[in-house]
Amino acid sequence: MPPSSATAKRSKRTENHAVAGLSIGSYLIRRLHECGIRDVFGVPGDYILGFYSLLNDSPINIVSCTREDCAGFAADAYARVSGMGALAVTYCAGGLNACNSIAGAYAEKSPVVLISGAPGISERENKPLLHHMVRDFRTQLEVFEKLCVAGVELDDAQTAFREIDRVLDAVASYKRPGYIEIPRDMLHVVPSGRHRAESRSEQASDEDALREAVEEAVRMINGSQKAVIIAGVELHRFSLQDAMLALAEEARIPITTTMLGKSVIRETHPLFVGLYEGAMGREEVTQFVEESDCVILLGSFMTDINLGIYTANLDPGKCIYATSEQLRIRHHHFHGVRLADFIEQLTRKKPRPPQRAIPKNPYAEQGKFELRPRDPIRVERMISRINESLDDKTVVIADVGDALFAATELVIRQKTEFLSPAYYTSMGFAVPAALGAQVARPDLRPLVIVGDGAFQMTGNELSTIVRRGLNPIVIVLENGGYNTERLLHPGNYKFNDILPWKYHRLPEVLGGGRGYDVRTEGQFDQALRSALADTSQMGLLEVHLDQRDCSKALRRLAEKLSKKV
Amino acid sequence: MPPSSATAKRSKRTENHAVAGLSIGSYLIRRLHECGIRDVFGVPGDYILGFYSLLNDSPINIVSCTREDCAGFAADAYARVSGMGALAVTYCAGGLNACNSIAGAYAEKSPVVLISGAPGISERENKPLLHHMVRDFRTQLEVFEKLCVAGVELDDAQTAFREIDRVLDAVASYKRPGYIEIPRDMLHVVPSGRHRAESRSEQASDEDALREAVEEAVRMINGSQKAVIIAGVELHRFSLQDAMLALAEEARIPITTTMLGKSVIRETHPLFVGLYEGAMGREEVTQFVEESDCVILLGSFMTDINLGIYTANLDPGKCIYATSEQLRIRHHHFHGVRLADFIEQLTRKKPRPPQRAIPKNPYAEQGKFELRPRDPIRVERMISRINESLDDKTVVIADVGDALFAATELVIRQKTEFLSPAYYTSMGFAVPAALGAQVARPDLRPLVIVGDGAFQMTGNELSTIVRRGLNPIVIVLENGGYNTERLLHPGNYKFNDILPWKYHRLPEVLGGGRGYDVRTEGQFDQALRSALADTSQMGLLEVHLDQRDCSKALRRLAEKLSKKV
Repeated sequence: MPPSSATAKRSKRTENHAVAGLSIGSYLIRRLHECGIRDVFGVPGDYILGFYSLLNDSPINIVSCTREDCAGFAADAYARVSGMGALAVTYCAGGLNACNSIAGAYAEKSPVVLISGAPGISERENKPLLHHMVRDFRTQLEVFEKLCVAGVELDDAQTAFREIDRVLDAVASYKRPGYIEIPRDMLHVVPSGRHRAESRSEQASDEDALREAVEEAVRMINGSQKAVIIAGVELHRFSLQDAMLALAEEARIPITTTMLGKSVIRETHPLFVGLYEGAMGREEVTQFVEESDCVILLGSFMTDINLGIYTANLDPGKCIYATSEQLRIRHHHFHGVRLADFIEQLTRKKPRPPQRAIPKNPYAEQGKFELRPRDPIRVERMISRINESLDDKTVVIADVGDALFAATELVIRQKTEFLSPAYYTSMGFAVPAALGAQVARPDLRPLVIVGDGAFQMTGNELSTIVRRGLNPIVIVLENGGYNTERLLHPGNYKFNDILPWKYHRLPEVLGGGRGYDVRTEGQFDQALRSALADTSQMGLLEVHLDQRDCSKALRRLAEKLSKKV
Repeated sequence: MPPSSATAKRSKRTENHAVAGLSIGSYLIRRLHECGIRDVFGVPGDYILGFYSLLNDSPINIVSCTREDCAGFAADAYARVSGMGALAVTYCAGGLNACNSIAGAYAEKSPVVLISGAPGISERENKPLLHHMVRDFRTQLEVFEKLCVAGVELDDAQTAFREIDRVLDAVASYKRPGYIEIPRDMLHVVPSGRHRAESRSEQASDEDALREAVEEAVRMINGSQKAVIIAGVELHRFSLQDAMLALAEEARIPITTTMLGKSVIRETHPLFVGLYEGAMGREEVTQFVEESDCVILLGSFMTDINLGIYTANLDPGKCIYATSEQLRIRHHHFHGVRLADFIEQLTRKKPRPPQRAIPKNPYAEQGKFELRPRDPIRVERMISRINESLDDKTVVIADVGDALFAATELVIRQKTEFLSPAYYTSMGFAVPAALGAQVARPDLRPLVIVGDGAFQMTGNELSTIVRRGLNPIVIVLENGGYNTERLLHPGNYKFNDILPWKYHRLPEVLGGGRGYDVRTEGQFDQALRSALADTSQMGLLEVHLDQRDCSKALRRLAEKLSKKV
């Protein structure tokens, strides 16, 4: 069967290597490598030690983390930056520690492969109670079937290669996590017979539906007075940023992004309007989008936080809503239309709505930051100061809470990356994500903004960062507790308080990195300068904030959310 | 319907309070309190904040932890020490972080209630993408159905009280975790109609099966030459320690325990033989058990680690195997016989096997510890030194790895408690368990033994310990890596190494507790004395060990396990 053009690339991969004689473990490693994975995160444990040895002798590096959930976040960030990520863990006591980070990757469409060791098939006779076992041998697989787009237990040598292909293909196609469990006595088994990688070509678009949809979209755009694009994170996941830009530039349609989609376009682009976050965002952006009579959502998730807790006010009757999963124009749906095809065909039709004046972005336009050295440091001033120091080599990583809300006001220049769990909003993402991002892209320097509560969850992962000689700059927002919760649910509740650590002294415990204790603008400025200049090590800035201080975005969000708590 | 005697206690509870007018949240809190829960662990988050406010105004205290998995371990230890434990967390990004600790509670039969907030029912119309959501609104419930003995989403006011009763009854009966999810708009709903707590009486034993089983057991015991009891952890969970002792003392049958069951009997009891751990344990105990012609296993899990990775060599044809779940004598099974009834009826029959001479326990018999102040500290010498300082007010908590294997050689006196995840063997149990145990029993002082790898996972929970002014003594075994894995899978693998923190300096970061840096026997002796004398704060001993040093038990185990890796 000659490969079609759509499958040529994948078939080529298959032809390039002989798989005869490979063990199941070796085949998995080869396939991971072909998917662009150069580093696997994880924590060793007896059921996975055999696989670690195989990795150790392979071109793929092992990055040992302090915890499995951190390994999950690191693999997620690695995937966001470089296309696919992986972690390898031991059975249950290892794997079940990664449930939350895998769930986050599912929710936010990050292609992560979770590989778990398991008791050998031969160890399972007579249903023994083996260590790390929960209920029965399938428990962990069943849990991850809920949290992954595809999963398999490699208990059959005859199907193992095909099943590995199936899971990795699903991860690549859907940009969701996949689960591969290897009973440890299957690792070195060499399947008999020949393996032919199936040409699982991507489904082509339904041509009639595509044509009809594009025609209608063009009519709608050309008939509109005020068109706008909302560019979402899927454009990044499916490498469609340039396609979207081609459309916007061809048709001169202004572009906004969502919080999760921040950095899919440089924010100094002349067509860029700002972040659309409903009532949470800047008023002029909200107004610009909501008075539009043609809203083209491309790869955007319509999530609550992403769109300002449904304070976003979009009339579906004016929307073209295209994602990797669906295409809806006004109130009807087109099935079987690929996002890439839709954007490409739409661009070819050269739609031409009237041009719109784009409001100025006050953050992009702001003049030089005027330091007030003795003023206590405040969140918004801190963001303005950071704004001056971003460059192409920065990847900004924001944890949730005001770390995220404040960071949305950073101006993304050129190809600065911005990573954040802006939909699933799991605390503790940022520090391990810095590890993952910098392992994936050693040429980038992560700038992490993280709340104290989130830092207490996963800040330990600085250990791995120090051990590997990485140099992120980590800014801990210290206000003695969960400030977002305090704002959501006012009242003097002690349960929102946490112990104020001396975060800047952690480098003394870790034996690496440099800590800075920051209370004023002057101290912040100096610490940031020093940390930026010192590329030899991790910099940890402990920034003391007033409990009443927060970004404007958080204050607006809290007002909306607190009604539901 | 008049209550039977078996249900009198529970019915009394129901009569004692009127539930009319209570909201679902208030009813849950009342029932938790009736189950003996005085403290709930957790991490606040918006979907559970309403429940936290209710707790705040109730007789139950909130113990905010750094992470949800730590809250799970703390609740598990609380349950082991005081009968039932609970944690309350937010939806998915909170709850899914507790999968591993809940799985551990399931595997080791610890009665823990996991309470999770969730989006309100009214928020779910039109299937919005709410933050913290994974796949659909049932995902988290479905995950915990795999890891709990019972679970419910309280989405129906008419059944809510009954469902709360059902889950709590299952937790109490089966000593396994239960899951209760509360959509946040159901919290304050007051069900109409009357709630009558169902008299869910414990199933009585099948009298015929019980009689026949007891008769056979007595014949077997009386006909034996060498009888022995293996006392397991279920005796502790179901409060059957005294019943087992009554049987053993009546019949003068020697007693051994398993690793997980350590501390179900004081180890200075004249009938105590030692820990039976197959080839992993002391040779004279192994021989004593395996040459027995009548082995009475009471409440023991037949797990791999518990019984020395199946190096245990028990002939089922000589066993009476009674647990809360089954009763097997030789090769046949009796259904419907309660463990408590079996032990009680057996005792009444006054079996009398021949008496056996009990080998001396070298650890209990050992003379005074002779300090060699300048010698580098070694694991076995450290355990001998600790042995001298145990008393009734100590709860020993061992993490996994050599922390556990070495600690099995401690001699449990009187009512010293010993906690460890000896079956599920999840790293990171010990530090949060110290929090849970001391919150449950402030009169006890935890003595924690934990490896450096495990400490890097959950040592952050010292934050909560410092914040609450608790005073455990935490001994970190520092050897730069996962030493158990190094022994299981020899080879110079870097992935088993971890960054050597300066653990003893953590108190400076936390602003509380005192650290000790220990390299010699003299330093260990001084640090332990000092930490024991200083009851005002947590003591953190960083004990530097040679990588080649380990307990005899671990060395024996590693020899067995390494063949399977």
